[in-house]
Amino acid sequence: MRAAFMYGAGDVRVEDVADPKVEQPTDALVRILRTCVCGSDLHRYHQLPASDKGVPIGHEFVGVVEGVGSAVRSVQAGDLVISPFAWSDNTCDFCREGFQTSCRHGGFFAANGIGGAQAEAVRVPLADGTLVKAPVDEDSELLPSLLTLSDVFLTGHHAAVRGGVGPGSSVTVIGDGAVGLSAVLASKRLGATRIILMGRHRDRTDLGQEWGATEVVVERGEEGVAKVLDLTRGDGTRVVVEAVGYRQAYDTAVGVVRVGGTISRVGVPQYEEAPVGFASLFGKNITLTGGPAPVRAYIEELLPEVLDGRLDPGRVFDREVGLDDIAAGYQAMDDRESIKVLVVP
Amino acid sequence: MRAAFMYGAGDVRVEDVADPKVEQPTDALVRILRTCVCGSDLHRYHQLPASDKGVPIGHEFVGVVEGVGSAVRSVQAGDLVISPFAWSDNTCDFCREGFQTSCRHGGFFAANGIGGAQAEAVRVPLADGTLVKAPVDEDSELLPSLLTLSDVFLTGHHAAVRGGVGPGSSVTVIGDGAVGLSAVLASKRLGATRIILMGRHRDRTDLGQEWGATEVVVERGEEGVAKVLDLTRGDGTRVVVEAVGYRQAYDTAVGVVRVGGTISRVGVPQYEEAPVGFASLFGKNITLTGGPAPVRAYIEELLPEVLDGRLDPGRVFDREVGLDDIAAGYQAMDDRESIKVLVVP
Repeated sequence: MRAAFMYGAGDVRVEDVADPKVEQPTDALVRILRTCVCGSDLHRYHQLPASDKGVPIGHEFVGVVEGVGSAVRSVQAGDLVISPFAWSDNTCDFCREGFQTSCRHGGFFAANGIGGAQAEAVRVPLADGTLVKAPVDEDSELLPSLLTLSDVFLTGHHAAVRGGVGPGSSVTVIGDGAVGLSAVLASKRLGATRIILMGRHRDRTDLGQEWGATEVVVERGEEGVAKVLDLTRGDGTRVVVEAVGYRQAYDTAVGVVRVGGTISRVGVPQYEEAPVGFASLFGKNITLTGGPAPVRAYIEELLPEVLDGRLDPGRVFDREVGLDDIAAGYQAMDDRESIKVLVVP
Repeated sequence: MRAAFMYGAGDVRVEDVADPKVEQPTDALVRILRTCVCGSDLHRYHQLPASDKGVPIGHEFVGVVEGVGSAVRSVQAGDLVISPFAWSDNTCDFCREGFQTSCRHGGFFAANGIGGAQAEAVRVPLADGTLVKAPVDEDSELLPSLLTLSDVFLTGHHAAVRGGVGPGSSVTVIGDGAVGLSAVLASKRLGATRIILMGRHRDRTDLGQEWGATEVVVERGEEGVAKVLDLTRGDGTRVVVEAVGYRQAYDTAVGVVRVGGTISRVGVPQYEEAPVGFASLFGKNITLTGGPAPVRAYIEELLPEVLDGRLDPGRVFDREVGLDDIAAGYQAMDDRESIKVLVVP
């Protein structure tokens, strides 16, 4: 099959490799219908040291089950399925508590011997726990929106949920990438009445406004903080979603969060240390939360709203490429020419 | 009157100063019946640069109202009152949201021109918002427990509340000082069924066990983390209360918190930066919360249980000194010879 690999920063190649197959009784083999490029892929696209051995990439997909191991009960060949970006048994205590990204027996795609999803097919471990069936056909127009349940939309949803967004909430969303926009949509769905979107790419913030952003702040850094404070009587908002992952975005979050409020991070932090003391979090009783979204915990809840068209999170995809052209997709996202690139193997 | 001042690290003096008086219509003048030394006073006791001008100290007290300004309605001369360590109007939006330590018009005792409570009397701004009447006499045996509603017990309570302690919770409490012990008592009251107390002072941990600690871990640092993980199948506990304020205690908290759990800090951080990235908080979806306890928000709820003897938080006081001997009280706490020192002006 064809599969994409990264050989270093900016170096994405598509190659012929051996077809994956069912190895464990709990595996499923899934032919990929749609995959995509993630903001977290871009972090690696900037940082991966060059090597003559490529690493598999991609972790978001919808596809069709081609075969299953002898122990798999919940899916069978021919089922169209959504896969979370983390595979999990969905039965251990961590999973039952809603943290499938920390499953005791699970892991991530494109890591530890499991292939990437930017490929024609992938082996899915713990298929019963991982995969969720979607009652649509291979040519459904809903595939892009269903694909967002694999990661991006539910990562935005996780940010909003962990931030405590509810009816009447005021939220600042830092970052107008696909996750930030998804957090806008999710916050609106959960009842937020004020959503300040911080971003400076007009095509993106326009979609954010369609999805519920009530204000857009284009300034960044200290100027951006000042602008949000200006909009909020100097107080900031109760919830702040940090959907970028850079330290500057963290500092912005600290600057715009209201007394007693919550900063919810879903941008994978590209830093380890940050201010948490009296002057930043402690003095104002600020809560810092977030992490890798356990999307498996949310798929069943949100799926019906995607199926009946109430939610259209697939609108984050504004470009489509074939798998062999995926390098151009990375480039387009990195150049901010595209919000998020859909890949059709 | 007599009042205590700090002139530098380790230098506490008691002096004659002008009596405080009612200055604003919203003030009350309170004669102090009981005050005490706080763990946060010890931080300053270690760090305050020497000066020939002393700073007022002390922020916890119960006392009797001696006089009120013309606008005060809720208390009058002769009332026995509990004062939170922060004064507040208790009506602004931040107060109504339960964050009286961030009151828009409030402040702290022993700061910004308001006297300290380690004194014979103190002027209380915004008396209607700040003071809570307690229906006891000046010679009540309940005074020490009532005094803990001024700060220490309710700071422990705040830690437990913000940590999300409820029926069946597992909690690790880092620190066997008066706040840590209070957090044990508060966690037990809120329904925690497992409380691991990290501390190595036997007299303190004994009280912690009486109050509900199910296990005591005397090791610190990496050894302490290993011991707690050992007790919890390698997982840590859902709630971790950090009641110390040093960076090592933060690192311990990160080490013993369970996937998806919460670190609740009430020890005033003696550091500004700390790890918050993928390897510490983010990867496991850990929540970091806490801050200065808005004790005003909790007094009415807990007062009845102190009055009827269900709660005995005053047991943290294991030494009593007169105001003129307060320097010895500081020394005893700093030497860990005393958990918490009660001061009788």
